[in-house]
Amino acid sequence: MSRPPATQYSITLQVSLDNSPGVLGHLATAIGDAGGNIYAIDSFVAKGELLDRDLVVNCKSVEHQTEVVEAVQNTPGVVLRGWWDRTFRMHEGGKIEVLSLFPVGDQQDLSMAYTPGVARICNAIAAEEALADEYTIRKNTVAIVTDGSAVLGLGKIGAKAAMPVMEGKALLFKEFGGVDAFPICLDVSTPEEIIETVIRLAPTFGGINLEDIAAPGAFQVEEALKAALDIPIFHDDQHGTAVVVLAALQNALRITGKELKELSIVISGVGAAGVAIGKILLGAGATNIVGVDVEGAVYKGRAGLNRWTQAFAESTNPEGKQGRISDVIHGADVFIGVSAPDVLTQDDIRAMNPDPIVFAMANPDPEIRPELTEGLVRVLGTGRSDYPNQINNVLAFPGMFRGALDARATAITENMKLAAAKAIAESVSDDDLCETFIIPSVFDKTVSTKVAAAVADAARNEGVCRS
Amino acid sequence: MSRPPATQYSITLQVSLDNSPGVLGHLATAIGDAGGNIYAIDSFVAKGELLDRDLVVNCKSVEHQTEVVEAVQNTPGVVLRGWWDRTFRMHEGGKIEVLSLFPVGDQQDLSMAYTPGVARICNAIAAEEALADEYTIRKNTVAIVTDGSAVLGLGKIGAKAAMPVMEGKALLFKEFGGVDAFPICLDVSTPEEIIETVIRLAPTFGGINLEDIAAPGAFQVEEALKAALDIPIFHDDQHGTAVVVLAALQNALRITGKELKELSIVISGVGAAGVAIGKILLGAGATNIVGVDVEGAVYKGRAGLNRWTQAFAESTNPEGKQGRISDVIHGADVFIGVSAPDVLTQDDIRAMNPDPIVFAMANPDPEIRPELTEGLVRVLGTGRSDYPNQINNVLAFPGMFRGALDARATAITENMKLAAAKAIAESVSDDDLCETFIIPSVFDKTVSTKVAAAVADAARNEGVCRS
Repeated sequence: MSRPPATQYSITLQVSLDNSPGVLGHLATAIGDAGGNIYAIDSFVAKGELLDRDLVVNCKSVEHQTEVVEAVQNTPGVVLRGWWDRTFRMHEGGKIEVLSLFPVGDQQDLSMAYTPGVARICNAIAAEEALADEYTIRKNTVAIVTDGSAVLGLGKIGAKAAMPVMEGKALLFKEFGGVDAFPICLDVSTPEEIIETVIRLAPTFGGINLEDIAAPGAFQVEEALKAALDIPIFHDDQHGTAVVVLAALQNALRITGKELKELSIVISGVGAAGVAIGKILLGAGATNIVGVDVEGAVYKGRAGLNRWTQAFAESTNPEGKQGRISDVIHGADVFIGVSAPDVLTQDDIRAMNPDPIVFAMANPDPEIRPELTEGLVRVLGTGRSDYPNQINNVLAFPGMFRGALDARATAITENMKLAAAKAIAESVSDDDLCETFIIPSVFDKTVSTKVAAAVADAARNEGVCRS
Repeated sequence: MSRPPATQYSITLQVSLDNSPGVLGHLATAIGDAGGNIYAIDSFVAKGELLDRDLVVNCKSVEHQTEVVEAVQNTPGVVLRGWWDRTFRMHEGGKIEVLSLFPVGDQQDLSMAYTPGVARICNAIAAEEALADEYTIRKNTVAIVTDGSAVLGLGKIGAKAAMPVMEGKALLFKEFGGVDAFPICLDVSTPEEIIETVIRLAPTFGGINLEDIAAPGAFQVEEALKAALDIPIFHDDQHGTAVVVLAALQNALRITGKELKELSIVISGVGAAGVAIGKILLGAGATNIVGVDVEGAVYKGRAGLNRWTQAFAESTNPEGKQGRISDVIHGADVFIGVSAPDVLTQDDIRAMNPDPIVFAMANPDPEIRPELTEGLVRVLGTGRSDYPNQINNVLAFPGMFRGALDARATAITENMKLAAAKAIAESVSDDDLCETFIIPSVFDKTVSTKVAAAVADAARNEGVCRS
């Protein structure tokens, strides 16, 4: 493993140290020599002749964790009392819980929250179904639906193995949008089954966030659910990514001074994200986009296109270019990668127009190693948190649903997505804007508030709200 | 409305009172004269010449709320600033929320709870599916599934209108069992669709609580899901009721000194609850049960029985009795009603054996008005909180699932139900036990702990647990 030590492989070590000078230093040295990175050392508790401490050490892999543990065990004056993998520990029992919004302490509470009082609310909704949006969790609750067919970069790992991601998403929905979200991981084998199941589940939810469903099934599922249901449907892998890419691009253009409509743009990867990025860029005014997949440039009439990539082909590539990335990148202003590691070369970038903008978002390994772009690009963005300009959906989806729910929107429209992108872009001030800061931090919670307000306004202006 | 004022119709009144003696008295008198029952008066806040106060007043109906409000408005020296219906207010936005189990405050948290760290958990589960029970919310999360076909006593009101009940149930699961439960209200039209949908949803949940599904569909759903899934499936309307009835009966017998196996028992109502009560009583040793429905006594060979009532008929009514309640009640020791108001008469009780035990659980109006049983019964139980001996499922289902989840049980067996009933019965001490206290209070939280321990033990003894 050549990767540096990272939090995802961090461990907590519980040690007892002899209470004599230098022992902690020896321990730190041993951990460092083993390649571990000490993230934190808690204050000690004296236990007789010993000092008990907890240390958090970032490691490189599971094997490396064991090496660090052995180094600790072999340090004189140190007794290892226990250790654990922090990522696994954090996931024990799952990451979310379902809580009451008020205590049920006595018969009075119970007779309002449950029988007999609850029957009054049931009857009211039975008489006027729209009241469910006011008097049930539908008002603020979104399903995070997946079939586990395209989870992160891991592929088709199945419904149960997808749960930790959907729980993580639920946690982000709450943390950044105040939206109650619940994982719905489905054991199904066709897009039709997803559609059918979500329609049956719809009485429970005020919105549907589709997640990690393989294309082209994901397109079909989204299309069918939008037609069937009157609540917001949002495939985050498509539209969350597209919104944040547009925001990042708008800010990159504030730096380079170019106009979106005059740009030549290459998109590497024409799956769910690539198609959606193409669509939102066209909606925002782009005119010259070329998509490239494993078979090369996507052009009108190319064999093997499905209904959605065909629509993409028909609205992009005006010159009908063919060939690989290196064939179509010449004279491009922007490269947007949602594909695979190392598909972009330094020579490709050299063939681009002046001030090239490169968003290399393949995860965890980008389309080009960021180090290789130094001196070649004007603006670089990736999907990673350890480089500047992290293009992360978290900037979009919590505020998107917050705004849609607040406005009682019946759909998420193109205008709402454009408004979200603008709000994200505008949260970077002229003073802060620079090549290494085109996109706000995912921890800037003011962003989702701004996105929510912009999305709700757009929904109201467009008239896609329940009365 | 002849009912007394009740919390379910309570209102909060925000009033400003002239700061002079007697005004509050006049107000209280006006409310009392209008038939309102003042539940609480908050301390005042002085605002210039005025005292601002909030009052909570129980009313009898929605119309009566308006009468009380008018009486307040007409009281000299009182200005009504606002008022609301407390039950509807309590339900605004729903009754439960989905919360993170830890904060996501920085990149370190995010890289463990979400990408890239979460992929480690996904991969672990993909390699060994059973780990989902340890590292996702499956460990502690139950779906409360309904199609809204038989909600409370309201009948088929549909999925959306059922939501408030399922949310209420989720709240009770958390409050009394520490179980995370989530409503799943399905827009479906057949039992087959419920079965299919729940099987698809199963990767998300560690247990399924079926609720308010009409019989006989409910029997079919439960049977099919038990066969298809390796997680606890529990139809609360059947088994929750049955468990608590058995507990109540066991304690009533501690008072009358009779033996279960020698009792003559009449069950009024042979739907989901009645069938399950019959089954658990037989399992506990009862030998002489007669079920009665709207067509009269259920006996072997009666026309119009479905598969489940036929099984009931074959295991009950050994003498093949026929006729109405008044025909079969003669010489009965126990009457158990899960049917309809006023189907039991005083003469029926007079025809029973000495020390009659009557559980009249139709809600909200029991099989016989409790006042009419005075002097006639030895022990009376109802489903209501305003009489002694409330036979309430809340005593069973939270502890039942707590125990099943703790033991990693793959099913909920007859033994586990019997153990739960025994634990509930035994939580009433000999000192406390009397005719008006055969069943613990629903607010006695020690009960669910005892039930959970007993259920988990039973599961382990029976060997129905994941390793």
